[in-house]
Amino acid sequence: MVWRLVGITRYLERDGGVYLELEVIGLSRDILLEFAEQEKLSAASFKAVGALSSLRLGWFNWESKKYEPSVTLDEQVELLSLIGDVALKDGKPVVHAHAVIGKKDGTAQGGHLLEAHIRPTCEVVLAESPIHLQKQVDPESGLALIRL
Amino acid sequence: MVWRLVGITRYLERDGGVYLELEVIGLSRDILLEFAEQEKLSAASFKAVGALSSLRLGWFNWESKKYEPSVTLDEQVELLSLIGDVALKDGKPVVHAHAVIGKKDGTAQGGHLLEAHIRPTCEVVLAESPIHLQKQVDPESGLALIRL
Amino acid sequence: MVWRLVGITRYLERDGGVYLELEVIGLSRDILLEFAEQEKLSAASFKAVGALSSLRLGWFNWESKKYEPSVTLDEQVELLSLIGDVALKDGKPVVHAHAVIGKKDGTAQGGHLLEAHIRPTCEVVLAESPIHLQKQVDPESGLALIRL
Repeated sequence: MVWRLVGITRYLERDGGVYLELEVIGLSRDILLEFAEQEKLSAASFKAVGALSSLRLGWFNWESKKYEPSVTLDEQVELLSLIGDVALKDGKPVVHAHAVIGKKDGTAQGGHLLEAHIRPTCEVVLAESPIHLQKQVDPESGLALIRL
Repeated sequence: MVWRLVGITRYLERDGGVYLELEVIGLSRDILLEFAEQEKLSAASFKAVGALSSLRLGWFNWESKKYEPSVTLDEQVELLSLIGDVALKDGKPVVHAHAVIGKKDGTAQGGHLLEAHIRPTCEVVLAESPIHLQKQVDPESGLALIRL
Repeated sequence: MVWRLVGITRYLERDGGVYLELEVIGLSRDILLEFAEQEKLSAASFKAVGALSSLRLGWFNWESKKYEPSVTLDEQVELLSLIGDVALKDGKPVVHAHAVIGKKDGTAQGGHLLEAHIRPTCEVVLAESPIHLQKQVDPESGLALIRL
């Protein structure tokens, strides 16, 4: 999978929270990741709402121990919730986010965020943590999980 | 669209957060808006769960550049997530919220909150921000978007 | 309904927030409840994402005034959002949580959390409140609702 990096356009740091307003066209996980790298975030949680023009979501197949595609949409949808966190893996920030979207008929779909194009906006509220969250590979699932 | 205003019944201010317990019958966006006006909120984010006896949700049609109806329900549902924020537009607070609801068969639907009747309760956690969030009309979409 | 109690494995207290990393196999409401009891939480709100190997959700039937089953799944799903709070009822913490899950085809379902097995993880961000939230039985619905 190729990620197209898009810059963060506007943000404002505040006590314990950061408001992000993301650009009209962007891959949301990229933007959050770039933001996390730029701000040297080592632990944060966020929630967001907005709208998307396309997206790819996945689910973790416990049999194959891999993320597999579950939703691929190329249409305008409401981003109903995007909840996730930032943690460090091997010293670098990683973003983990789960999305729920609403289609034009109100149907809700959702999964693990793989890729999304924001249109026209995504309002992210991100709270930074004073501690570090470290991810380590879990032997059973093969996933990098938070270990405090 | 006509909004029926319903008063806020109980709330308690705390450091950085406000807990709201909303009344049995009310239009949720109204209550949040009235609360925002009364408390002179200029920037806040919130999340909520609860239950509704009816609701109308919409989606933003990128072709028509308008919010159009997506879900209209007149039945008891669980409010699974209500995520949104308060910002200022032309000096007055505006509330933006996206809802996901669960029907009695567990089906999830969701969209941009247009109207909802709370029954019996909605537990809102609202965090006020020390900064102002200003909305300005975005020329491309025609929507008022947050500009920091 | 019988709850199987599973211990909290790792957590770290911080100013205004607590990060929980829950065990591979566990009943999520139990873990949160045990955590709330152990930490003597009297008021807190949380949001979480993760994955589940099985779950039971419900909805509040306004006619019967009872929680009735809406979703019973015995398969691996993404936990897209788990939003809820902790309050005191008769001096003991109670956990109220609503879940949205995503199936392998991306379908979203959701309801009031009755029971869930976490696999492999659930990332909970919990913010404690300095005030007490008290629940009292509401005469109309028969539910214990927060009364500030």
